Amino acid sequence: MYTHKRFSPLYTDMYQLTMGQAYFLHQRHDSPACFDYFFRKTPYDGGYVIFTGLADLLEIIASISFDSSEIDYLHSQGFHPDYLSYLEGFTFKGSIFGMKEGEIIFPFEPVLRVEGGMLETQLIETLLLNLLNFQSLIATKASRIRNSAGTRILSDFGLRRAQGMGGIQASRAAIIGGFDNTSNVFSARQNGIPPAGTMAHSFIESYDSELDAFRAYASVFPDKCILLVDTYNTLKSGLPNAIKVARELEEKGFKLKGIRLDSGDLAYLSKKARAMLDNEGFDYVQIVVSNQLDEFVVKSLLDQGAPIDIFGVGTSMITGRPDGAIDGVYKLSFSDGKARLKISENIQKTTLPGKKKVLRYLDEEGRFYADCIALYEEDSPEKMFHPFQKEKSILLKGRPYEELFILHMQHGKITTAVNGPFALREQVSQRLGQLPEEHKRFDYPHIYKVGISQKLSKSRDSIVKQLQQFM
Amino acid sequence: MYTHKRFSPLYTDMYQLTMGQAYFLHQRHDSPACFDYFFRKTPYDGGYVIFTGLADLLEIIASISFDSSEIDYLHSQGFHPDYLSYLEGFTFKGSIFGMKEGEIIFPFEPVLRVEGGMLETQLIETLLLNLLNFQSLIATKASRIRNSAGTRILSDFGLRRAQGMGGIQASRAAIIGGFDNTSNVFSARQNGIPPAGTMAHSFIESYDSELDAFRAYASVFPDKCILLVDTYNTLKSGLPNAIKVARELEEKGFKLKGIRLDSGDLAYLSKKARAMLDNEGFDYVQIVVSNQLDEFVVKSLLDQGAPIDIFGVGTSMITGRPDGAIDGVYKLSFSDGKARLKISENIQKTTLPGKKKVLRYLDEEGRFYADCIALYEEDSPEKMFHPFQKEKSILLKGRPYEELFILHMQHGKITTAVNGPFALREQVSQRLGQLPEEHKRFDYPHIYKVGISQKLSKSRDSIVKQLQQFM
Repeated sequence: MYTHKRFSPLYTDMYQLTMGQAYFLHQRHDSPACFDYFFRKTPYDGGYVIFTGLADLLEIIASISFDSSEIDYLHSQGFHPDYLSYLEGFTFKGSIFGMKEGEIIFPFEPVLRVEGGMLETQLIETLLLNLLNFQSLIATKASRIRNSAGTRILSDFGLRRAQGMGGIQASRAAIIGGFDNTSNVFSARQNGIPPAGTMAHSFIESYDSELDAFRAYASVFPDKCILLVDTYNTLKSGLPNAIKVARELEEKGFKLKGIRLDSGDLAYLSKKARAMLDNEGFDYVQIVVSNQLDEFVVKSLLDQGAPIDIFGVGTSMITGRPDGAIDGVYKLSFSDGKARLKISENIQKTTLPGKKKVLRYLDEEGRFYADCIALYEEDSPEKMFHPFQKEKSILLKGRPYEELFILHMQHGKITTAVNGPFALREQVSQRLGQLPEEHKRFDYPHIYKVGISQKLSKSRDSIVKQLQQFM
Repeated sequence: MYTHKRFSPLYTDMYQLTMGQAYFLHQRHDSPACFDYFFRKTPYDGGYVIFTGLADLLEIIASISFDSSEIDYLHSQGFHPDYLSYLEGFTFKGSIFGMKEGEIIFPFEPVLRVEGGMLETQLIETLLLNLLNFQSLIATKASRIRNSAGTRILSDFGLRRAQGMGGIQASRAAIIGGFDNTSNVFSARQNGIPPAGTMAHSFIESYDSELDAFRAYASVFPDKCILLVDTYNTLKSGLPNAIKVARELEEKGFKLKGIRLDSGDLAYLSKKARAMLDNEGFDYVQIVVSNQLDEFVVKSLLDQGAPIDIFGVGTSMITGRPDGAIDGVYKLSFSDGKARLKISENIQKTTLPGKKKVLRYLDEEGRFYADCIALYEEDSPEKMFHPFQKEKSILLKGRPYEELFILHMQHGKITTAVNGPFALREQVSQRLGQLPEEHKRFDYPHIYKVGISQKLSKSRDSIVKQLQQFM
């Protein structure tokens, strides 16, 4: 099972290991290198992404090592004995700078900067992308559902539709993005999240009558009983039976916690259910709904005035549907003392060279105004330029700003405290509060300004010019 | 890390454990029960699904047990001490019947039938759905890409965009669906899949010139060198340099294995590259392409005559995009000596009661003709009925048929051999060969006929009637 105590270094792409051998045999494995992690396109055509997965990543990187069976396997695949001897003693000794976990991030800006030897910085690429791309996707999806749900309770019901063990990490990311609890007991325990859940249709069906089933459950969990009311007929059977049991519980000094609707028109049924419960004096009984929810359905239900207290969200959140992945990449920006870049016929795919950082400028009310990518040793730039259209620039001089890059790992040792998912949820909520509403809109959100400093722009121009001599 | 040696039983939904407590405290935990696994809708609007994940599932179920720290955790969540004592000694003692892994399956038909005590059969629901829904999704996606690729080589390049550790299981499922190798070294080792991969753009960029980088790699891997040619300019720099290195390798008695294109128009560039290579006498150098491929792009490239030998497929395959999940469910069909079902206002969601099996009828050429769901003790039915429209029926009498259900686990012990992914790939390929082409079409595939026997239909009618007395 998944544990941080031992995460195999073979959890990587083969080419990291073949490139590693080429670096090693040419004695370039320790030459200084720097890579950037960034993405190019927001998922869901949304306005932002929530950076998630860093705690996992740092913990795993800090403990990477090859065991003898892994070395044997690589030997069987034809790797060079000298290289394998080197890998036997390998640990990651590099440094990682970048955004905090839970930061709001935007396309094209570096999120992390990984510095170290050529081999070690290359070797962690796949692991880094695998952890950060996925967890950031799910936290972003969860934050959109939170945006629709307001202050209502959000439960992660996704494990059965999760992409295998990805569900464990997704449940943590869901909390960071704004969820309250999870049905996934393993993830609940591992991440300190309250586990949630009561009964399935099978429980009801296994009794000869729905009322027998409700009574059986209520007798075992009188103080935390949520009755599923749609097994046979929601309004004619499920609710009348739930009301009977609510009354019986009251007689014993308990309160029915809720009823759950899992099919049918949730707006119509929740209104009818609320009215039936209220008429009988059970205004404290909460209404839980589930069944194919996402940010759009939740918003629509609440726009229709559906009196729902708790949303259980499964497939769409846990798989980040319909996008399934963030296109995050990890690109070389520096090696052997030189800034590096990849040229592309598509200007948007030409990478930004050199060691960089990101400054976030604020408006008069302390809200996010624009992010500027600068060289790491630069002072705050007075002006920033559109990354691909030089004729567009905006003045930054005099504006307050934040330095978004901090040191997370120094020479292989973690230097930042690991925050639990609820602390990160707080951080996300506070930062989203600083992001103007128009960037959070679902339909055609306003594009947040990300630019580059003049020094960075000039550096890129001069490297492109040098490279063109080879073509 | 993921290992079958110890898979936590907390990898489940909370409600399985709360229902378990209610069953236990009412002494119903050992009453005989039966659940069906099935799905309602094919992913990708396709014509079929490939059943995958069974080997994983059986191995994990056969070894389920709670350790003391897990019992302590459940204690901290308020579970009853007597129930926890029971869980301490819990193992799965039920039986599992159903389709073979790698079988072609269709909506509404049971794929597995799980029999055992009420508690144990309920407890495994989430695990079963998590493993089977996801792996079947990926194998199905992979088989669609195989359908487009014909006999060309397919490489799984997905780990960096996979949904966390789901990538490990997905790489195995990709082979079952028709892929040839994987970049994921961990999964390669665990599942006996050849690992594949050579170099990234960063390798090229880390040298002062592309030619230096190519030569450095070729000197280390002269017999398995695939050069990535699009870092600066594919036709003006990458290919001319690759041709130089191909010539140098020939002088040393080696052959350049391939070149890889990862950007630009892959149809145009692969044709140009083929012509340039052939003109210089390097007709043996293979062309590898990658970058946002799926079944539609692969088909389009080959329809355009692109001379591609190897496709590296990432995001779309490894996440099963755009669907992300199969809607597989696990429904009670029998308990306490009675057939059970769930009624729904949507007739398609009313479940099929009782212990069942599936018979597959064949046409004159041995191809799949129709599947009939019958009660498990029935002989081959002479006629089958549309599951929701009784007036539609077809004659089966005299047709050859296969019994698709076999015993996989008896009283907690696995009874079938576990096949490796390549053996399963053979099985899939053979079975897909028996599925008429019109069900494999991407656009509006012909719907495969799945019906129910008259006995099953009558059983459903009579239970629905009984249940209606409570409404």
